[in-house]
Amino acid sequence: MTTAMVEKYKAFYRLLNKTSRTLVDRRFRQQGQCARGGSAASGLDHRPDAVVEQRVSYLGCPKRGLWTSARASLPSFVDGGFARDYPMNRCRSFGSVAGEIQRSSKFATLNSDDVAHFKEILGERNVVQDERLEAANSDWMHKYVGSSRLLLLPKSTDEVSRILKYCNSRCLAVVPQGGNTGLVGGSVPVFDEVIINMALMKQVISFDKISGILVCEAGCILEDLISFLDNQGFVMPLDLGAKGSCQIGGNVATNAGGLRLIRYGSLHGNVLGLEVVLANGDVLDMLGTLRKDNTGYDLKHLFIGSEGSLGIITKVSILTPPKLSSVNIAFLACQDYLSCQKLLLEAKRSLGEILSAFEFMDSVAMDVVLNNLDGVRNPLAPTAHNFYVLIETTGTEESYDKEKLEKFLVGSMESGLISDGVLAQDINQASAFWRLREGVPESLQRAGAVYKYDLSLPVEKMYDLVVEMRARLGKQKVVTMIWFEMAILLYI
Amino acid sequence: MTTAMVEKYKAFYRLLNKTSRTLVDRRFRQQGQCARGGSAASGLDHRPDAVVEQRVSYLGCPKRGLWTSARASLPSFVDGGFARDYPMNRCRSFGSVAGEIQRSSKFATLNSDDVAHFKEILGERNVVQDERLEAANSDWMHKYVGSSRLLLLPKSTDEVSRILKYCNSRCLAVVPQGGNTGLVGGSVPVFDEVIINMALMKQVISFDKISGILVCEAGCILEDLISFLDNQGFVMPLDLGAKGSCQIGGNVATNAGGLRLIRYGSLHGNVLGLEVVLANGDVLDMLGTLRKDNTGYDLKHLFIGSEGSLGIITKVSILTPPKLSSVNIAFLACQDYLSCQKLLLEAKRSLGEILSAFEFMDSVAMDVVLNNLDGVRNPLAPTAHNFYVLIETTGTEESYDKEKLEKFLVGSMESGLISDGVLAQDINQASAFWRLREGVPESLQRAGAVYKYDLSLPVEKMYDLVVEMRARLGKQKVVTMIWFEMAILLYI
Repeated sequence: MTTAMVEKYKAFYRLLNKTSRTLVDRRFRQQGQCARGGSAASGLDHRPDAVVEQRVSYLGCPKRGLWTSARASLPSFVDGGFARDYPMNRCRSFGSVAGEIQRSSKFATLNSDDVAHFKEILGERNVVQDERLEAANSDWMHKYVGSSRLLLLPKSTDEVSRILKYCNSRCLAVVPQGGNTGLVGGSVPVFDEVIINMALMKQVISFDKISGILVCEAGCILEDLISFLDNQGFVMPLDLGAKGSCQIGGNVATNAGGLRLIRYGSLHGNVLGLEVVLANGDVLDMLGTLRKDNTGYDLKHLFIGSEGSLGIITKVSILTPPKLSSVNIAFLACQDYLSCQKLLLEAKRSLGEILSAFEFMDSVAMDVVLNNLDGVRNPLAPTAHNFYVLIETTGTEESYDKEKLEKFLVGSMESGLISDGVLAQDINQASAFWRLREGVPESLQRAGAVYKYDLSLPVEKMYDLVVEMRARLGKQKVVTMIWFEMAILLYI
Repeated sequence: MTTAMVEKYKAFYRLLNKTSRTLVDRRFRQQGQCARGGSAASGLDHRPDAVVEQRVSYLGCPKRGLWTSARASLPSFVDGGFARDYPMNRCRSFGSVAGEIQRSSKFATLNSDDVAHFKEILGERNVVQDERLEAANSDWMHKYVGSSRLLLLPKSTDEVSRILKYCNSRCLAVVPQGGNTGLVGGSVPVFDEVIINMALMKQVISFDKISGILVCEAGCILEDLISFLDNQGFVMPLDLGAKGSCQIGGNVATNAGGLRLIRYGSLHGNVLGLEVVLANGDVLDMLGTLRKDNTGYDLKHLFIGSEGSLGIITKVSILTPPKLSSVNIAFLACQDYLSCQKLLLEAKRSLGEILSAFEFMDSVAMDVVLNNLDGVRNPLAPTAHNFYVLIETTGTEESYDKEKLEKFLVGSMESGLISDGVLAQDINQASAFWRLREGVPESLQRAGAVYKYDLSLPVEKMYDLVVEMRARLGKQKVVTMIWFEMAILLYI
């Protein structure tokens, strides 16, 4: 048994090594399954030479699978005009990226035999060459457009395995695709890669009401899982703006964070197991359902956030917390960014276990929302404030939680951390508060084409970036949303 | 930049591949840094052929670095007589394991030039050949005894790197060692490996009071970190019985869970970054301090739980939550195991965010404690109960939390889930309740030699194991402690 295990691990490392070389040498693309909304699912986080540079020029590169895409090496952001590390003429407009690089001649070109073979594996219906290809060839922002001539819709792990095995043997490039909601082009082809879309693998396999452990296929839509769990009295530990379209496999492949990251932790903590098909078709079964599993190396973590570049995620096992019934929301104003930071620390300390959201926006973001969305109003008007913070608590006991939040707000007012504030009195008011914060990307979209980047920076430095960006970009609108230690930067 | 990154990753994979082969072929041992107490830090979790077998015979193997130790392939548990997969005569008694395998002749033997070289790197004082070697050659249970002739005490990452580089070039086997508190022999030599002990690398490098992120060296004693954070108003997200001796590097290397796993999640969620020295001396800097860092593959997770087999952890960056002031404890009795399970589910739902401990012991465990420890008493006597549960809540508001817990207890009493119960009225009573649960291993130790195994099994199956073990082992005492979804099985 031990020998078998050793052999298995050795084989995996050999494969990983070979795969990574293959990926580099051939620019083999397997990184899609991106989740939409930009939010934590796509992101900018990019570190040159394995050290994160916490400075503005670090913004120059959208995050991509590191070597899996030719596009990854190109800074699509240079249009903005401030990524000084890159020559301005390298990438003038969206859509031109593919033109910058050569399709490797090592890759085969799809032929009719290939298509026939895929039809044998998947059946006629799930080998798509019609107008549905158009949507699959482009991201929802239409920033990236590929020219794939084939979209495959596998229904099982076995089918995924057979597809990849065949593509590997024929040297056909592939790109895995989930909800295709990503913002960094990870889920669309660069050239004529075969698209493997996971949409048909959407079964919930099991749910254990004692432990809260959900096992499902990778193509399950996040919102469907949220509803499913809600009926069982549980919640998904992640939530994204794109939940209506993004798939759990893509969420895991991109290590999506989203709105619940701080309360429930990252997917590295919540994903208990994965089933993955490697580039050569081998199925790696790491589908554990134990809270703690220290048996051997925890290889599944390599796939979380690997953007599909190491394999296609086919099944996910995830730990879900019980649903709590009491939710309270406050909308507050702060004078300066330092007060916002202090407020976060105080909230963590005083609200502790019930704190479920801490969302930040500034007056520019507020104006964008008020000017572009209908039926919204600033609950703290008529006074103009510099910064706004939304705080949400979630707990088991309505009255206690509310009292605790009120006490915290009074204390913060007295100490001068907040200059104004209001507590939602009913569900409508709570929704209205959330609408302001969630309306930021939507209202920007109405005002123009939006560039959207996830940031992972120390909290104290996040706002410097906005200030510097505004100085550099002049009249273009620069807006940020920050929640806890995460932020999105947007501009039009 | 991208090319440099690609090269870096390629180099890492080549190295990993080479290392893993080296580890397998040469039985190169690098897996120490074990944490004591057995608890979640050592553990049994062992899966043949990458699939966890959830059955009793799965108990046959204590968890070990998978191939890093010759001992790993031997079931030290067969003495118990029920590991049917293994011939009974393979491993008759503790201490005989090394005799079962051959020291590979590929390894060099330490000579005086080696020692002189190490003295050059580390200085005379930190190259140990005196009586301190004896303690380092054996685990605290004296189950495993090695015959190393050299103990090295590096003071910096650079020294660790130089040691490993030299050992690699000379083909000297090494074993990394932390607090040497492990129960599975991972931190002691099998033969004459050079012991690299991390005790001198015990500096706190930085602590950020806004984010709660601690960066420290791997040799920091867990209890020292707990005290340090306590002064700052924060807590470590893990706590172990062995905290007085075990080191954070060992905790991470063994993916220790411990008492706070359920409340604060696993180390995969809380460890933000690592610095690791690979077998060839290369330093891998993954010492991020961001809540979310999606830049490239998250290689640090490979090292969490790898038992030192992939490299020696030299620095750790960890996210720590703020300290909460209100703690309440209840000691309860249940009629059957099913009620205990239901109580857990109810506690999660009703106590939700304040639930910080749910600990289980049965009447056999209670008797062992009462018969072997002084000054303890069953707070629910005189009636005899089958099962006992300790529930702890931690929150920000004493009065709310207490009221919430009382309400929960009354409800559980009415629904028949608990048959009796008492709420600690002061800190002394709270300590007395904890003393009962924490006294289980200590009292067993007084009664005889203890075999201790971590279990990761579905909750509903955990107690079956105890029943079956008792049936098989006859008059030997079999005891279990379960907390949340985790358990330790002990017998004498």
